[in-house]
Amino acid sequence: MSSTAGQVIRCRAAVAWEAGKPLVIEEVEVAPPQANEVRLKILFTSLCHTDVYFWEAKGQNPLFPRIYGHEAGGIVESVGEGVTDLAPGDHVLPVFTGECKECSHCKSEESNMCNLLRINTDRGVMLNDGQSRFSINGKPIYHFVGTSTFSEYTVVHVGCLAKINPLAPLDKVCVLSCGISTGLGATLNVAKPPKGSTVAVFGLGAVGLAAAEGARIAGASRIIGVDVNSKRFEEARKFGCTEFVNPKDHKKPVQEVIAEITDGGVDRSIECTGNIDAMISAFECVHDGWGVAVLVGVPHKDAVFKTHPMNLLNERTLKGTFFGNYKPRSDLPSVVEKYMNKELELEKFITHQVPFSEINKAFEYMLKGEGLRCIIHMEG
Amino acid sequence: MSSTAGQVIRCRAAVAWEAGKPLVIEEVEVAPPQANEVRLKILFTSLCHTDVYFWEAKGQNPLFPRIYGHEAGGIVESVGEGVTDLAPGDHVLPVFTGECKECSHCKSEESNMCNLLRINTDRGVMLNDGQSRFSINGKPIYHFVGTSTFSEYTVVHVGCLAKINPLAPLDKVCVLSCGISTGLGATLNVAKPPKGSTVAVFGLGAVGLAAAEGARIAGASRIIGVDVNSKRFEEARKFGCTEFVNPKDHKKPVQEVIAEITDGGVDRSIECTGNIDAMISAFECVHDGWGVAVLVGVPHKDAVFKTHPMNLLNERTLKGTFFGNYKPRSDLPSVVEKYMNKELELEKFITHQVPFSEINKAFEYMLKGEGLRCIIHMEG
Repeated sequence: MSSTAGQVIRCRAAVAWEAGKPLVIEEVEVAPPQANEVRLKILFTSLCHTDVYFWEAKGQNPLFPRIYGHEAGGIVESVGEGVTDLAPGDHVLPVFTGECKECSHCKSEESNMCNLLRINTDRGVMLNDGQSRFSINGKPIYHFVGTSTFSEYTVVHVGCLAKINPLAPLDKVCVLSCGISTGLGATLNVAKPPKGSTVAVFGLGAVGLAAAEGARIAGASRIIGVDVNSKRFEEARKFGCTEFVNPKDHKKPVQEVIAEITDGGVDRSIECTGNIDAMISAFECVHDGWGVAVLVGVPHKDAVFKTHPMNLLNERTLKGTFFGNYKPRSDLPSVVEKYMNKELELEKFITHQVPFSEINKAFEYMLKGEGLRCIIHMEG
Repeated sequence: MSSTAGQVIRCRAAVAWEAGKPLVIEEVEVAPPQANEVRLKILFTSLCHTDVYFWEAKGQNPLFPRIYGHEAGGIVESVGEGVTDLAPGDHVLPVFTGECKECSHCKSEESNMCNLLRINTDRGVMLNDGQSRFSINGKPIYHFVGTSTFSEYTVVHVGCLAKINPLAPLDKVCVLSCGISTGLGATLNVAKPPKGSTVAVFGLGAVGLAAAEGARIAGASRIIGVDVNSKRFEEARKFGCTEFVNPKDHKKPVQEVIAEITDGGVDRSIECTGNIDAMISAFECVHDGWGVAVLVGVPHKDAVFKTHPMNLLNERTLKGTFFGNYKPRSDLPSVVEKYMNKELELEKFITHQVPFSEINKAFEYMLKGEGLRCIIHMEG
């Protein structure tokens, strides 16, 4: 048992006081974990678009002050009542969505959309008592998606923590907490391209490149990267992309362009932009008879997916996925093992590193569209 | 070798001279089969909506005079050059779509949409020479979907014939040529409901009832029949339906009604009406996390399938099927065996019988919505 167990911990956290304003490193108090909660020390965290999206708070309910962050790697400091799966010293990845292991979704082999711990971006407090574990001079600071990893210590529901191999380097595998697993799982768990098949990936950001990496691992023979930004193409070759289509270079719809170069369509497509037109194209570019399209990107709330039903009746399949269909606790440890046995390459996703004191630089890189993942070193 | 092999056969056929006008039993000449063709004696045929739809010719290209009919059972009379799979005396089911066994679709384990022999409702001639094998006094009569079973003898491409167990009663298994296999396969091959699952079937005509029969065979615990005609509900119990929803009885959308009675949605749904609103409801009534909706019914050509993409991202799957994903030659024989070993019940689909001379009565029954399948006895 650590000497801090049961005590309030005072540590540094990057607090968002207002929408879109730079985070401020503050000293915060982190209360001990309650029932089914775990307090952990974050060693490395990275920045994902979802943090930026909710920090900008354009359209959603603003909830401030708040501590963002949900891609991270850490070590358990202490556990609350009823926590038996984890103990101080365990290495964990916090995840923005959870796995209670008891609801109908957790009991289903197919779903990872836990009824109890499914992502909730509106809630800024812990489930157990409806309160925050973070405060500054007694004033509560809100949580974000149950993880709030932009803090040296954070409190997370045990159902949102994946216990991983302690030998795995946390400064690398922390990126598996969200985006990389989302793209990878969309391909490996949902699209499931057979060896030698053709795959189209729409959107060559981190999630799309992870989807391409999944296709590479699955042994796809052709991986067609689709993006409106041709600057991304060269980099995407590292992730297995073998050819590229920029919809802006063509007068005809991109699904027709893809059908022409693939003798009728790709075997699998994965949509990672969230743009509704790209979603429709991703569906319509798969081959009739056997094609499967997988939607990953989150669309605008008013978006409508439209297609002629004959596109379906001609034996195409359309599926969506959430977090790559990985169950956080049951499945993430095996994704870490894929990295450990060199099947999955993570280094190429990590393009920047900053000390915690310079966390706002990570936001700048992302807002400029520079690089893929920026690792934030909590010690720095 | 039969004595008629290589000769023109003169026999009776029911000829449609004009759209929507009663068929006329005529004496026709049936030419011998050419390369890769088979001439067969039809013993029993049944009437399917598709015959009626193209006979009415509302909207499609009219092609007259024509011999309709595509659900049937027959015996091979003679075979053309290159036919090695079938011999005179073999019992066969002709099918409106084929299986060449050589194209990319036939080689795919998943598709049954043969490139060479896929259904073509516009073509009224044989592939080999672009001519009809039927004539009256030298004037050609057009084929329909390569089968034209409303004739005592017909010529069919070998790829459109399933060789079946000669012990199977052709007056029963002839209904497996089209509609019943379409509904059955939609459930067994595509929706694949796990044992104990809940299934909704939209549309309780012959195809929908066959889909329900598939759910019964699969061991579904609840089979919810959905139809705007409540008169169909009692009959549907014979096909495994355990409960019913008539969308007209509710103010809220039927998908919401179904979600309420199933704790969030059914595990599987199968849409057998072709109505676009029913298609959308059938998709939206499946449970998030694992629900699978299968579209069977053929929509109006201008129909647009619309849904919010979050319905997909919440891990629902939408698929379409054609002929229940059965490959005609490879798979239909095993469906016949399902009947032979009493797993599949066919008698309950057969509600009427008429002699060939009264074939127009079968059209009347269907136009009035009476019964499910009417068997036409070619001998009568």
